[in-house]
Amino acid sequence: MSNINLSRRQVIIGAGALSVGAVAGQIINPFSRAEAKGGKTEKWPWPYVKLDPAKTAEIAYHEWYRIYCGGAVISSVFSQLREKLGEPYKSFPIDGFMFLEGGVAGWGTICGAVIGANIVTNCMIGPRYSGATDGLLMGSEILDWYTETAMPVYVPKKPKVSPEKIPHTTSDSPLCHISVGKWMKAANKPFKSPERRDRCARVTASVAYHLVELLNQWKQGEYDTDGEIPSAEFGISTQYNCEDCHGSDVPSPPEEAAK
Amino acid sequence: MSNINLSRRQVIIGAGALSVGAVAGQIINPFSRAEAKGGKTEKWPWPYVKLDPAKTAEIAYHEWYRIYCGGAVISSVFSQLREKLGEPYKSFPIDGFMFLEGGVAGWGTICGAVIGANIVTNCMIGPRYSGATDGLLMGSEILDWYTETAMPVYVPKKPKVSPEKIPHTTSDSPLCHISVGKWMKAANKPFKSPERRDRCARVTASVAYHLVELLNQWKQGEYDTDGEIPSAEFGISTQYNCEDCHGSDVPSPPEEAAK
Repeated sequence: MSNINLSRRQVIIGAGALSVGAVAGQIINPFSRAEAKGGKTEKWPWPYVKLDPAKTAEIAYHEWYRIYCGGAVISSVFSQLREKLGEPYKSFPIDGFMFLEGGVAGWGTICGAVIGANIVTNCMIGPRYSGATDGLLMGSEILDWYTETAMPVYVPKKPKVSPEKIPHTTSDSPLCHISVGKWMKAANKPFKSPERRDRCARVTASVAYHLVELLNQWKQGEYDTDGEIPSAEFGISTQYNCEDCHGSDVPSPPEEAAK
Repeated sequence: MSNINLSRRQVIIGAGALSVGAVAGQIINPFSRAEAKGGKTEKWPWPYVKLDPAKTAEIAYHEWYRIYCGGAVISSVFSQLREKLGEPYKSFPIDGFMFLEGGVAGWGTICGAVIGANIVTNCMIGPRYSGATDGLLMGSEILDWYTETAMPVYVPKKPKVSPEKIPHTTSDSPLCHISVGKWMKAANKPFKSPERRDRCARVTASVAYHLVELLNQWKQGEYDTDGEIPSAEFGISTQYNCEDCHGSDVPSPPEEAAK
């Protein structure tokens, strides 16, 4: 939907070129709105203190049973920062994101846990126009990690369902429908079952754990992103595994020269 | 990913049962967090004054060229409400949602314009635990409308690309990859072309226009939702058109009795 056409290398070069201004907080570019029109939380990066990944995962696990996947990931990070730092986290409407459940209102699109993580990285580190692209690329890195990981990774301290009842499956997709569907098939458990629900609570905890690992690296100045922007490589916004849906007949996008 | 298992009728009944308490703003239920822990913007519904759909669409169209689809839909509504009402809109980090571009960081998942609209309806009207389900169902109604509508609907006053260069296509999906892919095929234009970019700016404007039509009905007390929760009907979080991806071999989810 956008003008994303940067390879990771280009993004990093761009970030580098802008980083001095960004650090000074005075960067001016054609994307940012006039100062008077900007909201008071639209100054980046937001403050951050390192969090404990396991504690964050426990919060996410339990918050799943209150506001589900997307809200729970956001809450697991922002509710701790509300207590430790106050604003802008106190002004962020965490619970308004309960609707991310079921891949957005039950439509099975993007997994709520991963878009919750993207909301955290982007709202905290800032949009790419601000001169820092780590928010965008860290979010993309989490999308990629999610698709390739046998989930759920995290086992809660006091699980509501015995761990042996929760098989591990690799989604090869950031979509809720595919991630949940592959797990339901492997587990032979229905959508409303306690096992499926606890699986998703643990996926949420797993994403929150990894998110905080990356945010802590970023805070430490040691974050070197693995994130890439798929639309830059494929000539269309997309996942990486074209053949999983298209089979052997993957369409080619119109040539750029045709414009 | 969640416990969404309510039919529209059940949701409406649930909303009705809770509505008196919700109006009084004092509803207590097991989902809401302790008052002391809640953020200051987590009281619903947020204030709203009716907006002009065409003006909102124009803002969305131009904002697309600054922060792309998802950010632009949010900005088209919230930036007007910042000026007219102030808080909580001044505290909402609109530009942090630039990452919704390209179906979330170029991954082609949910169209940024429709998740932007869902963020608006849910953050403004509130999560379903607050006793009002119109935010969730209005968002779902917009998802459904988006999939069935020949897009883009809205023609900007001063379009950057001649309207005859922008064909109309029906996505049958809320996913960016499919929506953009079908349009690119019909138009024979590449992802980076001015035509594809302007098409997405107009889709963004179209969604913003319809969003404000529905919000105005809600403000007037006349909103009667067409929104449904697909996961309630299908036993898995999903779109409605199973055969478009699965062909004639649509898998059946495990029986609820199997749990």
